[in-house]
Amino acid sequence: MKRVKVSNNVIRRMPRYLRMLDELMENGVNRVSSFQLGQLLGLTPSQIRQDFSCFGEFGQQGYGYIVSALREQIASILGADRGYSAVLIGVGNIGRALMDNFCFSSWGFSLVAAFDVNPALIGTNINGVNIYSMDDLETYLHNNKVDMVVLAVPKDVAIPVTNMLTANGVEAIWNFTNVDLTAPNSSTIVENVHFSDSLLSLSYYVSERQDEKAARAARAEKAENNQ
Amino acid sequence: MKRVKVSNNVIRRMPRYLRMLDELMENGVNRVSSFQLGQLLGLTPSQIRQDFSCFGEFGQQGYGYIVSALREQIASILGADRGYSAVLIGVGNIGRALMDNFCFSSWGFSLVAAFDVNPALIGTNINGVNIYSMDDLETYLHNNKVDMVVLAVPKDVAIPVTNMLTANGVEAIWNFTNVDLTAPNSSTIVENVHFSDSLLSLSYYVSERQDEKAARAARAEKAENNQ
Repeated sequence: MKRVKVSNNVIRRMPRYLRMLDELMENGVNRVSSFQLGQLLGLTPSQIRQDFSCFGEFGQQGYGYIVSALREQIASILGADRGYSAVLIGVGNIGRALMDNFCFSSWGFSLVAAFDVNPALIGTNINGVNIYSMDDLETYLHNNKVDMVVLAVPKDVAIPVTNMLTANGVEAIWNFTNVDLTAPNSSTIVENVHFSDSLLSLSYYVSERQDEKAARAARAEKAENNQ
Repeated sequence: MKRVKVSNNVIRRMPRYLRMLDELMENGVNRVSSFQLGQLLGLTPSQIRQDFSCFGEFGQQGYGYIVSALREQIASILGADRGYSAVLIGVGNIGRALMDNFCFSSWGFSLVAAFDVNPALIGTNINGVNIYSMDDLETYLHNNKVDMVVLAVPKDVAIPVTNMLTANGVEAIWNFTNVDLTAPNSSTIVENVHFSDSLLSLSYYVSERQDEKAARAARAEKAENNQ
């Protein structure tokens, strides 16, 4: 695929399109217009067409998109069809939650190994993924193709582990540690999972609702006083 | 605060501004222009000014923003200054990870209680938060102000628990279950945590890097063949 520089905001919307298309497919929808997609996602049709146009021509004016074909194209844009392999480092609460509940394969990824320092975990297997000792990590990285590391270690070791990873050729980290792993100009690709962004969005909508209720109550009181 | 309908995309950017402002404050930066903010966040200055203008007048043309004041205004827009209380339901891996590692208070929230069905957990306390039996949840909801529920229960009970919550007046759910909790027209405010969006963004950047490398290699090979 030919790549042009695409803005981060466009890239961030692509996974949302993918999820929505999966949902449409599950519901047996075969064709969708940018207008319908926009309504489902709270975006304007022109925004959606503009986003897709960053990656070439999809769909047909006045006809819409074939859901399955668009799904495939977006998955391909996102690299979800490249069979990327991921390694989990840190089988604590969050690492364990990912192994138990996050279906890497449904997004085209395979979780091939996990590493921890806990002797009680080393040598065990969760959902078909072996847990190895951290001592074996360097050797593993040298002998296996690892496209990305899922980092879920405790805060205090996040930086030293990252330094070890980059020294051993790891180029991409999915970061659950809430620590800034690398310098701003680092060549390592880091994707941070920010729970706070999500919580604050929720908080916004709760506040909006409360303000609406308060405004309604104030109007009702005013109306009553005026009677 | 007067509220106008603001697009979801603007709302989604506000927590990112907040995080960046926190970082600037930590680094002792007092004033920031929309140009500088834009560079830090990969947004255009006009986008940033437009986002802020949804909520009134901040900053001053040619002078920029006072970091601490802007931080306070955005926190207020997001409701992070309202002392919202949250209750966690489900102290499994993900729930435990949130109790251990996610600092609710640094975003203005307080986690006031947790609930689980596991007798080994009931009656214990993690980081000052008591874990109660699910049997006591209904009573708790009636006797306490609960602004939002953090839902981290297993998939198979996600819907029944949600129905129970909404029947007991819960209006907002932070959803870690990967299950669609409510019908599209439901009045319950649900914020889903989609790990997949984050992973797929990472995957995009990894793919971009790989394609660039492949293109460089192809050019180098061509140059060599032409010698």
